Amino acid sequence: MHHSKATETMRQAHLSDVNIDDPFWSYYLDLVRNVVVPYQWEALNDRVNSAEPSGAVANFKIAAGMMVGEFYGMVFQDSDVAKWLEAVAYLLETRPDPDLEGIADGMIDIIELAQQDDGYVNTYFMLKEPGARWTNLAECHELYCAGHLIEAGVAYYRATGKRKLLDVVVRFADYIDSVFGTKPGKLRGYDGHQEIELALVKLYEVTGNERYLNLSAYFLNERGQKPSFFEQQLHERGGQTHFPGLNMATDLEYNQSHLPVREQDKAVGHAVRLVYMLAGMADVAARKHDQEMLDACMRLWDNIVSRQMYITGGIGSMVHGEAFSYDYDLPNDTVYAETCASIGLIFFAHRMLQTTKDAQFADVMERALYNTVIAGMSRDGKHFFYVNPLEVNPKSCGGNNKNYDHVKPVRQEWFGCACCPPNIARLLSSLGSYIYSVHEDTIYHHLYIGGEANLKVNGTNVVLKQESRYPWQGDIKIEVVPEKKQDFAVALRVPRWSGGNASICVNGRAIPAEQLKVVNGYAVIQREWSPSDVIALSLEMPIMRVHSHPAVQANAGKVAIQRGPLVYCLEEADNGNHLHQLVLPKKGGLSLLEEGILGGMIAIEADALRLNEETWDGALYSERELPDYRPAKAKFIPYYAWANRGEGEMRVWVREQ
Amino acid sequence: MHHSKATETMRQAHLSDVNIDDPFWSYYLDLVRNVVVPYQWEALNDRVNSAEPSGAVANFKIAAGMMVGEFYGMVFQDSDVAKWLEAVAYLLETRPDPDLEGIADGMIDIIELAQQDDGYVNTYFMLKEPGARWTNLAECHELYCAGHLIEAGVAYYRATGKRKLLDVVVRFADYIDSVFGTKPGKLRGYDGHQEIELALVKLYEVTGNERYLNLSAYFLNERGQKPSFFEQQLHERGGQTHFPGLNMATDLEYNQSHLPVREQDKAVGHAVRLVYMLAGMADVAARKHDQEMLDACMRLWDNIVSRQMYITGGIGSMVHGEAFSYDYDLPNDTVYAETCASIGLIFFAHRMLQTTKDAQFADVMERALYNTVIAGMSRDGKHFFYVNPLEVNPKSCGGNNKNYDHVKPVRQEWFGCACCPPNIARLLSSLGSYIYSVHEDTIYHHLYIGGEANLKVNGTNVVLKQESRYPWQGDIKIEVVPEKKQDFAVALRVPRWSGGNASICVNGRAIPAEQLKVVNGYAVIQREWSPSDVIALSLEMPIMRVHSHPAVQANAGKVAIQRGPLVYCLEEADNGNHLHQLVLPKKGGLSLLEEGILGGMIAIEADALRLNEETWDGALYSERELPDYRPAKAKFIPYYAWANRGEGEMRVWVREQ
Repeated sequence: MHHSKATETMRQAHLSDVNIDDPFWSYYLDLVRNVVVPYQWEALNDRVNSAEPSGAVANFKIAAGMMVGEFYGMVFQDSDVAKWLEAVAYLLETRPDPDLEGIADGMIDIIELAQQDDGYVNTYFMLKEPGARWTNLAECHELYCAGHLIEAGVAYYRATGKRKLLDVVVRFADYIDSVFGTKPGKLRGYDGHQEIELALVKLYEVTGNERYLNLSAYFLNERGQKPSFFEQQLHERGGQTHFPGLNMATDLEYNQSHLPVREQDKAVGHAVRLVYMLAGMADVAARKHDQEMLDACMRLWDNIVSRQMYITGGIGSMVHGEAFSYDYDLPNDTVYAETCASIGLIFFAHRMLQTTKDAQFADVMERALYNTVIAGMSRDGKHFFYVNPLEVNPKSCGGNNKNYDHVKPVRQEWFGCACCPPNIARLLSSLGSYIYSVHEDTIYHHLYIGGEANLKVNGTNVVLKQESRYPWQGDIKIEVVPEKKQDFAVALRVPRWSGGNASICVNGRAIPAEQLKVVNGYAVIQREWSPSDVIALSLEMPIMRVHSHPAVQANAGKVAIQRGPLVYCLEEADNGNHLHQLVLPKKGGLSLLEEGILGGMIAIEADALRLNEETWDGALYSERELPDYRPAKAKFIPYYAWANRGEGEMRVWVREQ
Repeated sequence: MHHSKATETMRQAHLSDVNIDDPFWSYYLDLVRNVVVPYQWEALNDRVNSAEPSGAVANFKIAAGMMVGEFYGMVFQDSDVAKWLEAVAYLLETRPDPDLEGIADGMIDIIELAQQDDGYVNTYFMLKEPGARWTNLAECHELYCAGHLIEAGVAYYRATGKRKLLDVVVRFADYIDSVFGTKPGKLRGYDGHQEIELALVKLYEVTGNERYLNLSAYFLNERGQKPSFFEQQLHERGGQTHFPGLNMATDLEYNQSHLPVREQDKAVGHAVRLVYMLAGMADVAARKHDQEMLDACMRLWDNIVSRQMYITGGIGSMVHGEAFSYDYDLPNDTVYAETCASIGLIFFAHRMLQTTKDAQFADVMERALYNTVIAGMSRDGKHFFYVNPLEVNPKSCGGNNKNYDHVKPVRQEWFGCACCPPNIARLLSSLGSYIYSVHEDTIYHHLYIGGEANLKVNGTNVVLKQESRYPWQGDIKIEVVPEKKQDFAVALRVPRWSGGNASICVNGRAIPAEQLKVVNGYAVIQREWSPSDVIALSLEMPIMRVHSHPAVQANAGKVAIQRGPLVYCLEEADNGNHLHQLVLPKKGGLSLLEEGILGGMIAIEADALRLNEETWDGALYSERELPDYRPAKAKFIPYYAWANRGEGEMRVWVREQ
């Protein structure tokens, strides 16, 4: 267990200060701007014929009196619009786009019109259950939707300076603050799906109004107190449930209300709920210097990353409850590993990173980002994975075996429960804010993504120009351009996968290893910087054979291939079917293969053995026949790129001999 | 594919002619007589407090007007009483027991009283849906229940000579014959759960009335004709379903009505239904010399045993539909492998054996019997497995992961759907009839089970006295005592697992290998036999490392241990938890361990390697740490004996290196 102090927090770079220009990421950012966000707007407006209907925009129009109709969709349908607006805000903060801003302004006008006099906004309850506000917090996501709207309002204000949506969410938050709390007459409740906690901290940051920070802390501290608020509400509404069969109001582990949050030490229940809650806890702990809450964050972090996380950064291994399982239970085929859960893990990791300045958080952030998150979206930006398996056999997914009903061998167009696509959009469109932080006299480099950043350190404006072929190569060039000569430090993350093998030159002169100070995974270069100083960071990026902790049953006797931040996988398209027949000899060769496909990725060719069916005598079981292995080649591609060439088998963990 | 002719059929020994006296099996037979059958009678009468209620006897009493009440239980609850009566009949045929016979007679009186004037007997429809007879064949098991009652009536008549229940079922069968068939005005239907087909052949055998054989053939030939009878009935009753969510009437593969039975070549759907159907098909094919139907039996047999059978003789790998999956899909942990399905496989194999005289059928019969069937029952005779996993982790079964809801790590007391316990009882109580057959001048030994048999061959009465420590040792002594000197053949099965390594002495003199005629897996000794001739058969019984067909994903890189007919497994009780950490080196030693426990079984100790958690650095994934294996011992026990020492991990397939 790491001990971190909740005292000094570094500051992430503002999105507006970072301009990404990178051979790997620019494709995704352009995709989000040119395809994903426009496509999602069409989907939210029910104009994509081949996708499941959304109803999300229509619900707001009906609530605003602009249209006649009935509420359509999930109880949390509003949040899709909010997440889309948040993504739009990040795009606008990065680069002006009057057309897009016009569309967003129009949507914001509708939301403002729909807002009720007391500040309340939620189209499900306004249209479908007008009298039932706050009667079913466990299941109905009211504060969750509020949280997403607040995030959108804050982001849109930061991006455009326009206050309309911010004013809407301030009125809404003030109203919520008047309803919830420990004072007599207030509802001592909290939401079934955590989200408002982290949103209120953002609102506090932008408004400076401490009531929002306190309300966030209240929601966190109230959760898990006895008697159970959710059970009480269930009783009060006569046992009525919104999602029959899901036990949301009685399975207290599901929404992490089984214990006060400070007392929790094992990740349980719905994975997205937990990491959103932890992001809020990390925020509040840092701002209130709440060491006990930070300790709880660290305990739960350790449990997740050391016992419950897939090598791809996926979390929540069970479809049942979209939930964490017991320690080390990480099945690769019946897996859940929702895209949103990995995005939430990044939110949590990013906040812990600001507080602790410990590269382990950036390492996990990178792992989730380069593997599960971008695997969640097709290269065309219109197809998405909700579930991210590490082993797929399409025969099982398409068959009668319902254990695999949730696992799709190809990406789907748009879901009835469309949480993941807009979540990918808002994460990628805000990617610039994850790359750098500044603390005191130090500029931290967390992620190696090319482009230009304008930061202020020690009172001096500094431009950083980053250039690399990351994640394909470990050579990163960083030009440091302070407005004048200035003493400060540049801290470069040395990823765990490099084994600490980083060499650094400044202006062509190597810094000797003994002079390189490495603190919490960051190589710190302290010196007086002059305009046009150039750092050349070189990270060793060998092809690695990765093994799992011996307690992980699913991976016993298996190996995974990783290079840099990228986890690799075998696909049927390259290797034929029956991937279980491929075995990697412990000392077999591994070599890089430059590929023209899928964005110019680098594949890996491995010397392998292949279990041979042809010489087997045909019996199902044989006490005489010995398995016959023949030399073969296995071709691995990056996990994020799987399932872009039709339906087929895939696996990350491969037998090793 | 084997080609067998449907011309000459051998005759199984009558149960009354075989007296089992065997150190392995006498325990089970006494258990069935002294515990299982009495315990089940209590359960059927709802007198076992800790078990789920049955209602089965009460339903008959209510239908007979002896009691007031309502029908209780599943739509096929009657069959539990019938199966129990059939087991009782076999016990009585083996050895008189006036008390037990009195109880059975009393039950038969009730059934006779309950029978309606037209011959119909089915308490569900009589009590609960009086007007709905034959309106829902797909789901409501009417002919299935009739079939079990017919089997009971036949068995009870054979055992006791009493005609009362036989007369009941003759009236019932005559009535059924008047309802179903191809003639105008008759219902062109068949049952959703095959069973009556094989029962009618038994009724034909005991009565000599060919109408029953023809009715059986009709049911088989009609199945799968278009348009679908089940879909038509579903339409006629306005879509009403008895088991909502199971699609019994529309999923035609589920009940093998997707194709005419003669055209089927892949085992699909509900496993018990298929093997019961195949048993009936084998019966009809043999008696009607129907080569086409026998060919269909062979095709489906081959598909099952060469692509869809567990090493334990379990079949039907999916809980969803209790069904077969795609070829080679044999997961060990989410497995179904219902006890009843293996019993049905024995029924099918036994019939094919009579027709083909091919030992492969006896080999599978033995595999299912010595592994899945007796694993289905605890050593106390009061706890049963419905599902027979080959790999269990109690943490998964008890957790939130519903994929394992059906898998129990310990045997249960009595089920709401109690098909398996009485099925075990009727199979074990009739075990004597599976040991020998006679065809022309040859006596066949299929199973090596000690005791005495009185058979007639070539017009001569012959007493056979068999003695062995089978399945623990391969030395079998058989005394052949013809009433006078006589020429005939004794055919001894040489099990596939012996690798053909059998040596045979007659009166102490070895038969040279070149003189030993082996036909279809039987070593045939043709000679003039004198009273007190002694055969000493010696089968090699090495500890075997068994591998799976390379297409079986679940067992890739794994080995199973088998000795003689017994498949072995690792249990946590002997090996600690985390059984996935045990690895068997390819050339490691394997030795026998005589154990006092669980009926004096022989365990196997293996030189193994154990993945070491202690030296691992604690990380979930490591690119530096190499898995550390330490020499260890692994102790295997016979699979049938698992879960008799509390809850713990178990696995059959073990990693091999």
